[in-house]
Amino acid sequence: MHAIPDEIQTPEIVIDRDVLERNIARMAETARAKGLQLRPHAKTHKIPEIAALQLAAGAVGLTVATIGEAEVFVERGVDDIFIAYPLWLGARQAERLAGLSTRARIAVGTDSVEAAENMARHLGSAAGGIEVLVEIDSGHHRSGVGPGRAVEIARAAAAAGLRVTGVFTFPGHGYAPGMPVEAAEQEERALREAAKLLAEAGFEVSRASGGSTPTAALTGATAATEMRPGVYVFGDAQQFELERCALGDIALTIAATVVSRHEGDGATPRRVVLDAGSKIIGGDRPAWATGFGRLIDHPEARITALSEHHATVVWPDDSELPALGTRLRVIPNHVCVAVNLVDSLAVVSEGKVVDRWDVAARGKNN
Amino acid sequence: MHAIPDEIQTPEIVIDRDVLERNIARMAETARAKGLQLRPHAKTHKIPEIAALQLAAGAVGLTVATIGEAEVFVERGVDDIFIAYPLWLGARQAERLAGLSTRARIAVGTDSVEAAENMARHLGSAAGGIEVLVEIDSGHHRSGVGPGRAVEIARAAAAAGLRVTGVFTFPGHGYAPGMPVEAAEQEERALREAAKLLAEAGFEVSRASGGSTPTAALTGATAATEMRPGVYVFGDAQQFELERCALGDIALTIAATVVSRHEGDGATPRRVVLDAGSKIIGGDRPAWATGFGRLIDHPEARITALSEHHATVVWPDDSELPALGTRLRVIPNHVCVAVNLVDSLAVVSEGKVVDRWDVAARGKNN
Repeated sequence: MHAIPDEIQTPEIVIDRDVLERNIARMAETARAKGLQLRPHAKTHKIPEIAALQLAAGAVGLTVATIGEAEVFVERGVDDIFIAYPLWLGARQAERLAGLSTRARIAVGTDSVEAAENMARHLGSAAGGIEVLVEIDSGHHRSGVGPGRAVEIARAAAAAGLRVTGVFTFPGHGYAPGMPVEAAEQEERALREAAKLLAEAGFEVSRASGGSTPTAALTGATAATEMRPGVYVFGDAQQFELERCALGDIALTIAATVVSRHEGDGATPRRVVLDAGSKIIGGDRPAWATGFGRLIDHPEARITALSEHHATVVWPDDSELPALGTRLRVIPNHVCVAVNLVDSLAVVSEGKVVDRWDVAARGKNN
Repeated sequence: MHAIPDEIQTPEIVIDRDVLERNIARMAETARAKGLQLRPHAKTHKIPEIAALQLAAGAVGLTVATIGEAEVFVERGVDDIFIAYPLWLGARQAERLAGLSTRARIAVGTDSVEAAENMARHLGSAAGGIEVLVEIDSGHHRSGVGPGRAVEIARAAAAAGLRVTGVFTFPGHGYAPGMPVEAAEQEERALREAAKLLAEAGFEVSRASGGSTPTAALTGATAATEMRPGVYVFGDAQQFELERCALGDIALTIAATVVSRHEGDGATPRRVVLDAGSKIIGGDRPAWATGFGRLIDHPEARITALSEHHATVVWPDDSELPALGTRLRVIPNHVCVAVNLVDSLAVVSEGKVVDRWDVAARGKNN
């Protein structure tokens, strides 16, 4: 592993450009080999420079979660965006969405008759310029409807003046040990059934969108036309612990310093404390994770507690505790929320800072 | 409860100014009644306007967690700041800290001989202008040392040229059901013992700093000279579930919209999905919490899952599911991390937007 460049003041987020570029190329090749279009989810990075690398590698466009994220990327010249979210529009959001549709190909999600009719009502004459994909629940049980309800929603959307072009799903239940294969199978079945029902009802179904990083290699090309993985550009501790990436695929870490060090005794743990906490690592911790992130050069250590500015790292007895002042690299559990905590980050190559990128779409929640 | 003003586009963070001012006045009164100085932790709000209200109500100064936060508040005229953190300084941080000490009274923490010597070495001739408080572990087992080691660290710090003026501790183990009383007792014992040992060793101990929102009413005035609660300005779902505040004390909520609605069946839960996720609510969830936050007007509902832009809210069978498009107010579990996710927020009074405040110290992690 490369050392942290001296000019970095910890804590700070650092991207390894070489690993990033390798990850981007590999997912592009995976999609090509499967005959799927790749529409990476840009909520992971929120960085126009990374979107440009993805598009240059063959991505057909971007996925985002909010109108605000779409605005940032359209402003930077991206011309094909899917807001993969069941939007409930108000007047102001409808104006913003209509504005976007004059500058780029825009698709949005919907999962109810009411939301589709509300969207069309607010969009008025702009409705016909927006593509709509019906969201299908393939087993994650968040938003989305069963395939059997897709036709009813598509018909209401079309009757209200929207242009229905397909279906999408997010197999988020694949983010757990032992689940990716089953989630990908359910995704494939759900997309195939929904697309078939829509086609039988007379809709021209040109898009069936699925995919996530844990299931990307498994997404069924017999049902889907495109996939939307996001995390793959960086990898993170969740993907590592789910065995969806190796430590060598981790492109983003948080540079941190040991500020407190305790050999421990019967009553207190043997630990060091790092100056990176939940305000830069992010606080996500699924029940199956082994801690609040990992140390890239010390797989034996565990982050057992996280405060806003402290990571408590417990060390096994047979491994030497790092000295005070040691700089270490933390892999966040969930990289999307870590990136969203900083305005900019350092880009390194072979141990040298070669660039700084702004997280241009940070905080664009609405 | 007041409705969400129409001009708010969800999701957005909203502060109720009247509740905020009441919370500030009440904690100021608590501190006065106990004979303790109040030095609120500004990492909770990161907002100069709120710091000004706290100082006007009698706070002696502010607490912050990082040099970057101190810079923002000194720039806005705050002249007495305690960086309650065991800093490990590099050259650039030392320059910044020295710069602050020419403009304000600055104190910092330390919990090791090595960190104190490293700090003094980097500060050079500026060392004498910085007050140092030795961090004591009163049972949280994060940073800090047992009271018995305070003298050794204070002596090293003084020998290196720093000005040791006292001790501090954070009773963070009070953030759990049934723990505040025990944590406050341990805090009081630890501060008293450490201060006594330092005094016996010849140090003039003018500061013994403790406190947190869950223990604020319990902080022992026989040992402490000041307390540093932060969350009390807003309250949050953690404090509510720990019974440290009532729903009427909650000054900050996230305005959100129902974007997806499902009556549920045997296989899928009866739920609504809100457009506010972990990128605005924050992902913190202690094991004892009942969910990922609460709905202020629907105490019966539970946020069972949180993605970046979706909150899944399960509703009991005997309570009507809100309609699509309904606007609801979410109380975050941990308000400090929610505020840190936005650049600015709306301030309301009696249901009207009366101001917008910038979160000026957002993201100042180093």
